[in-house]
Amino acid sequence: MSRFLNVIPVADAVAAVISISPPTVTETIPLDSAGGRILAAAVMADTDIPGFDRSVVDGYAVRAADTAGAGDAIPALLHSNGRIAMGRPDPSTSVGPGTCTYIPTGGVLPAGADAVVMVEYAEEAGDTILGKKAASHGENVLLRDEDFKQGEIVFLAGRRISPQDAGVLAACGCAVVTVAKKPVVGIISTGNELVPVTVVPGPGQVRDANASMLAAYLAEYGCVPRHYGIIPDEREAFEAVLARAVPECDVVLLSGGSSKDDRDMTAAVIASLGEVLVHGIAIAPGKPTIIGRIGSKPVFGLPGHPASAFVVLIAIVRPLLDRMLGIPVPLQRTEKATLAINIPSQRGREEYVRVMLENGVATPLFGKSGLLNTLVRSNGLVRIPAGAEGIEQGSTVEVILW
Amino acid sequence: MSRFLNVIPVADAVAAVISISPPTVTETIPLDSAGGRILAAAVMADTDIPGFDRSVVDGYAVRAADTAGAGDAIPALLHSNGRIAMGRPDPSTSVGPGTCTYIPTGGVLPAGADAVVMVEYAEEAGDTILGKKAASHGENVLLRDEDFKQGEIVFLAGRRISPQDAGVLAACGCAVVTVAKKPVVGIISTGNELVPVTVVPGPGQVRDANASMLAAYLAEYGCVPRHYGIIPDEREAFEAVLARAVPECDVVLLSGGSSKDDRDMTAAVIASLGEVLVHGIAIAPGKPTIIGRIGSKPVFGLPGHPASAFVVLIAIVRPLLDRMLGIPVPLQRTEKATLAINIPSQRGREEYVRVMLENGVATPLFGKSGLLNTLVRSNGLVRIPAGAEGIEQGSTVEVILW
Repeated sequence: MSRFLNVIPVADAVAAVISISPPTVTETIPLDSAGGRILAAAVMADTDIPGFDRSVVDGYAVRAADTAGAGDAIPALLHSNGRIAMGRPDPSTSVGPGTCTYIPTGGVLPAGADAVVMVEYAEEAGDTILGKKAASHGENVLLRDEDFKQGEIVFLAGRRISPQDAGVLAACGCAVVTVAKKPVVGIISTGNELVPVTVVPGPGQVRDANASMLAAYLAEYGCVPRHYGIIPDEREAFEAVLARAVPECDVVLLSGGSSKDDRDMTAAVIASLGEVLVHGIAIAPGKPTIIGRIGSKPVFGLPGHPASAFVVLIAIVRPLLDRMLGIPVPLQRTEKATLAINIPSQRGREEYVRVMLENGVATPLFGKSGLLNTLVRSNGLVRIPAGAEGIEQGSTVEVILW
Repeated sequence: MSRFLNVIPVADAVAAVISISPPTVTETIPLDSAGGRILAAAVMADTDIPGFDRSVVDGYAVRAADTAGAGDAIPALLHSNGRIAMGRPDPSTSVGPGTCTYIPTGGVLPAGADAVVMVEYAEEAGDTILGKKAASHGENVLLRDEDFKQGEIVFLAGRRISPQDAGVLAACGCAVVTVAKKPVVGIISTGNELVPVTVVPGPGQVRDANASMLAAYLAEYGCVPRHYGIIPDEREAFEAVLARAVPECDVVLLSGGSSKDDRDMTAAVIASLGEVLVHGIAIAPGKPTIIGRIGSKPVFGLPGHPASAFVVLIAIVRPLLDRMLGIPVPLQRTEKATLAINIPSQRGREEYVRVMLENGVATPLFGKSGLLNTLVRSNGLVRIPAGAEGIEQGSTVEVILW
């Protein structure tokens, strides 16, 4: 193989990734374990919400007209005809002219009433209630179906279920919800220099940081990471682990080998078992990335440096995950910020610079490729488009937060 | 009990909450399941990282002085004395004057060399390598301990383990990590009007939305929610469920009953089994909140409207969770935004207004108390301090995102 890669633009690489994306697979799970999952189908209200005219305060259900002009000095005098019990409406209770009924928050507004005077503005004098504030028609009342109408679409597919959404799904009767199944993503670490976390590195060895980083990212993004350990740079080992991982996973990430020999081996093995679509992307860091397919399963060769692997994960792999999860917009949060200093960049490649975002100011952290400490000290990435020679100090940039 | 609550400021309520906070409990778990958890102890590098001078590119290890002045026209001529194998350093390989050694990315820099010329700038001619670019001392080399020194503190306690952090923890040899144990939080729904999600509400009934919302929030915030179902507004039922929940949980939330009778019952039962510290907070929505303690366990009575319960969860309960998890700064993300329109507020109470944040502009969503749809249409809260009469259009506000 040549020592120069045939790099392609990021947009073309992403298009290649999307062209081999498996379809979204769905599953139906209990609402109580659905927080953070992605809805795979629209959700409708199965009933009117609320199902009845409902008081939003503790007070007295009245005919608003009976309270016209009422105040501290001249209260409305109303005859109290009882209390509304929670959850057990009594159809015989109704509010006629000059009468009122005590109603707790959430209670069913009795027939005849069209407003509620808060208890704070009412005074009891035996069976007579002194209403000290005029109520307007509909005041302190939530009307039947005012929140959601039966059959109304409450959520569209592709929405991540937030805690509030879980509450609304409960109100809509969704004891189970249909969500995108979590893609199973295999993680294979390659490289003769790698040792597991449990081993103290000997001369020339380093611990496998990528596998843990990738697994934590994938889990947070709604996937199921699956570890296949560390394999040496030997063709038989590559082929054997891929033969095992490909059938068990939806996507496979090969990671860790940072040398050219290792990358070439990765590409050769993917080519022999399937096809290599991309070998080299105009992205920095992350140029020597491989995108391939074995059978119907996307397989990626990620660069070895953790920081590079992370950028490729966000820029190249994430669009695949979004597609498989059915997310229209990436889940990863971004935030606008002002750039603290100039960032120079090389035209022709999309560059991702680690930044520390604090109080709306993004400060780039430059440092040698391969350093881990800039990953820990930074909290986001700024993307410099391939066509730009850099971004000037004071510009507004979008920070991809992590 | 009086119909008026004896409300106290939010700061006093939070102080009361913190005064009864149980201490942080720790546990040691495998790194692979530690993503998103909170470190409960500082972490040090157990070795130098890297443990040796390391090339960050594929290229030729050289003495920088030998390449002085080299360029395309006048390359440095160097004798190639072999290749560095990954992970298996050969102490016999060294780079003397006029020689070089092929080194893959991540390889151990051989003795004598102090820089690496990238393969892109080198040309092979038999045993002679033509170096076409001058390398400066240390170029393309990551020095031993340049990333982290043995014994250096890499993370402080209280840090949420991000995916990158998981990678660095792996590099530091943390196959297991000590984290804050997830607090177990009991959720008890109260109110005669409530029915479970699986039931179609009859006249006067509503589904229990709060329990699902609270559980999803707690799970996302790093707690273990534990459901105790819906209990009717009867003293014996309250006492029985609390007798069961308090020993099984670290914190108990009573939620759902929105009427005064229900709140009074909650306060009375907590008082009979333990003590009520706070009944009524100067917060809107969420005024009728109860803070108590049974034995050593904090017990909250949350307001019944989901939107109110959510505000109290963030403003009052979260400080307790932060304390129990050992988080110095809340995990909940905030973002600065410009306020689209005036928000009027009542002096003397801290108000939380739901907003839709889009493109840096926060638009308040006003609507009747008790509506669920504003929870779904909004994506954050803006806090108006108790002393303010409101916030003017165009002001910069901090949005608490959800």
